Amino acid sequence: MNRRKFLTGAALGGAATGLVAASSLPKPAIAQGVKRLRMQTTWPKNFPGLGTGANFLAETVNKLSDGAIEIEVFGGGEIVPPFETIDAVESGTIDMGHGAPYYWKGKVPSTEFIAGVPFGLTAVEMTAWMKFGGGQALADEAYSQMNSKFFLSGSTGTQMAGWYSKEMNSLEDYRGLRFRLPGLGGEVAAAAGAAVVNLPGGEIGPAMASGSLDAADWVSPYNDLALGMHRSGWLYYYPGWQEPGPILDNFINLDVWNSFTETEKAIFEAANGHANLYVYSEFQANNNDALAEMVNEHDVQLRRFTDETLTGLAELSRDVLDGLAEADPLSRRVYDSMLTFRAKSMPWANVAESAFMQARALDYQFSQPSEG
Amino acid sequence: MNRRKFLTGAALGGAATGLVAASSLPKPAIAQGVKRLRMQTTWPKNFPGLGTGANFLAETVNKLSDGAIEIEVFGGGEIVPPFETIDAVESGTIDMGHGAPYYWKGKVPSTEFIAGVPFGLTAVEMTAWMKFGGGQALADEAYSQMNSKFFLSGSTGTQMAGWYSKEMNSLEDYRGLRFRLPGLGGEVAAAAGAAVVNLPGGEIGPAMASGSLDAADWVSPYNDLALGMHRSGWLYYYPGWQEPGPILDNFINLDVWNSFTETEKAIFEAANGHANLYVYSEFQANNNDALAEMVNEHDVQLRRFTDETLTGLAELSRDVLDGLAEADPLSRRVYDSMLTFRAKSMPWANVAESAFMQARALDYQFSQPSEG
Repeated sequence: MNRRKFLTGAALGGAATGLVAASSLPKPAIAQGVKRLRMQTTWPKNFPGLGTGANFLAETVNKLSDGAIEIEVFGGGEIVPPFETIDAVESGTIDMGHGAPYYWKGKVPSTEFIAGVPFGLTAVEMTAWMKFGGGQALADEAYSQMNSKFFLSGSTGTQMAGWYSKEMNSLEDYRGLRFRLPGLGGEVAAAAGAAVVNLPGGEIGPAMASGSLDAADWVSPYNDLALGMHRSGWLYYYPGWQEPGPILDNFINLDVWNSFTETEKAIFEAANGHANLYVYSEFQANNNDALAEMVNEHDVQLRRFTDETLTGLAELSRDVLDGLAEADPLSRRVYDSMLTFRAKSMPWANVAESAFMQARALDYQFSQPSEG
Repeated sequence: MNRRKFLTGAALGGAATGLVAASSLPKPAIAQGVKRLRMQTTWPKNFPGLGTGANFLAETVNKLSDGAIEIEVFGGGEIVPPFETIDAVESGTIDMGHGAPYYWKGKVPSTEFIAGVPFGLTAVEMTAWMKFGGGQALADEAYSQMNSKFFLSGSTGTQMAGWYSKEMNSLEDYRGLRFRLPGLGGEVAAAAGAAVVNLPGGEIGPAMASGSLDAADWVSPYNDLALGMHRSGWLYYYPGWQEPGPILDNFINLDVWNSFTETEKAIFEAANGHANLYVYSEFQANNNDALAEMVNEHDVQLRRFTDETLTGLAELSRDVLDGLAEADPLSRRVYDSMLTFRAKSMPWANVAESAFMQARALDYQFSQPSEG
């Protein structure tokens, strides 16, 4: 109802009406009846899948509001440094941000769990946990400590495990490995004896080429191809145990959020819901193509970790995650909720999507596209 | 822009303004500035996951339009019989419908492929094919033959393979099997020698109890539990090779669709995109719970088909699908597009989601929720 009045006022074109509307709202800039919001991403502007996901969100909100909300998208660093995006949203310097929850663990440790954990939930399970397993309320609680409203805004899907200059046959092979692997995965690799380093995306390729790294993880074929990691000649390992379904976040300054009408809130809810599967399926489609290009044109060698390596990594992940959960009460509650959902999700996954995909991969002759 | 004017007119409350707006639109009923649209589902009103998915779509459109679009949802049969929903939309008797594409194969054969095929794409892959693999344009072409605009509006995810009164160890065990299995799966089972019958959902349980069936497929634990199929004592087989990622459709009369403003079109696009993963994740969450209840409280016995049975079913599926595709040019084009996308999706699935879910299911001790 408020929005209809707002639009009516805008259409009447009266400067006085516009001023009244503006003065009753604590936050966003309103000019000529249009709410102008500023969103910074943690990604470079238009970064494939991630930056373009932020653009898609902004465009969808604009269309749904009939142009009454304009979100200007800034790349990481354009207003504040990428990893200070949340601070800028918290203080109201900008209206909203787009990134990944684990970037905020220094401020609110539970965001590292909200992002998804090693050996945890897939992208679809993360969404189901958010909507039907209590995840949204916990995430809102965590983000409220940063004066923000939380939305799940997409996923890369299961990532790869990264590139390795040698075969990885057991947990022993991690010992001394100079490994670019950030986040919880990095902590697990460190627990296995790796010398974990962090490097920005742009420095990974040169470090691989110079011999200063033995292994490096970035994202998946789509992004790894863009970074040129396939030119290393290294082995490309799977599965991405460390990031099975990592989520992206859209976070909105709470004063801005509270100034929204119910319709505007519904627009952000639906736009993020729409963006969620749009982003995930864009990664899916592009990873399909990039993997084919890597294998068929660049002779990239794929390797699967041994079961022994995977179970060892799972148990190290358990120790790392249990330790982090014990250190922070909200992390404990988030992890408990996620573990409860995981325990119910696995039996269903094992007879549904997982069992089907294994059956589909059996050896048989299926239909071929016609020549025509 | 049109919609803003429309809302402005509504807010002004002038009957004359309303009449002008109404007379300029060929279709939907407009009263007091609100567009009232009628949508019939093929499902019973409020049917779990499917009927509630239609309700969610209607509610989302209403919220996004600030109440300017009201969709009244009718259950299957309330206006016309369920499987005549598309005819009622085509003729303009109702504005839109909600169901599954394969229900319309009698009118447009390619809808059976658009729905998803045995051993085909998962739910996420179906969405990726629609958005990035050419699926949407082909579906729009097929539905335009029924005077309708097509939207993908959700998925059940991978289904189960159904309930069997005996063990299924090879393709031979299908011979003479009195089997409730509709659609393409039924055609494949018939090719394997089964005596395939179709029964409405409500008649399946009694037929299982009376001994007039040897096997029956409905959906997944969430819906099968509601139907009481777990009380049969039969074996519950997986994976659901016949429906790996079946999609739901929302179809809108083309005259109504063309009467929409760009903003209204964006609202339907985003509402369906939001509903897509909402519906799928609701099935996910409820299947998790229903499967646990079946196994833990009702001692339901799960069985996986043998590899030999699955590869046999895959090759029979190929023959059935190739035959259908040859009989209809648009089916051929849809199937070619889907096969091309499938050929690229499988290698990625095998190293991403599928490989991860297999790794997650290995034997190790993971974290447990705290007692507190």
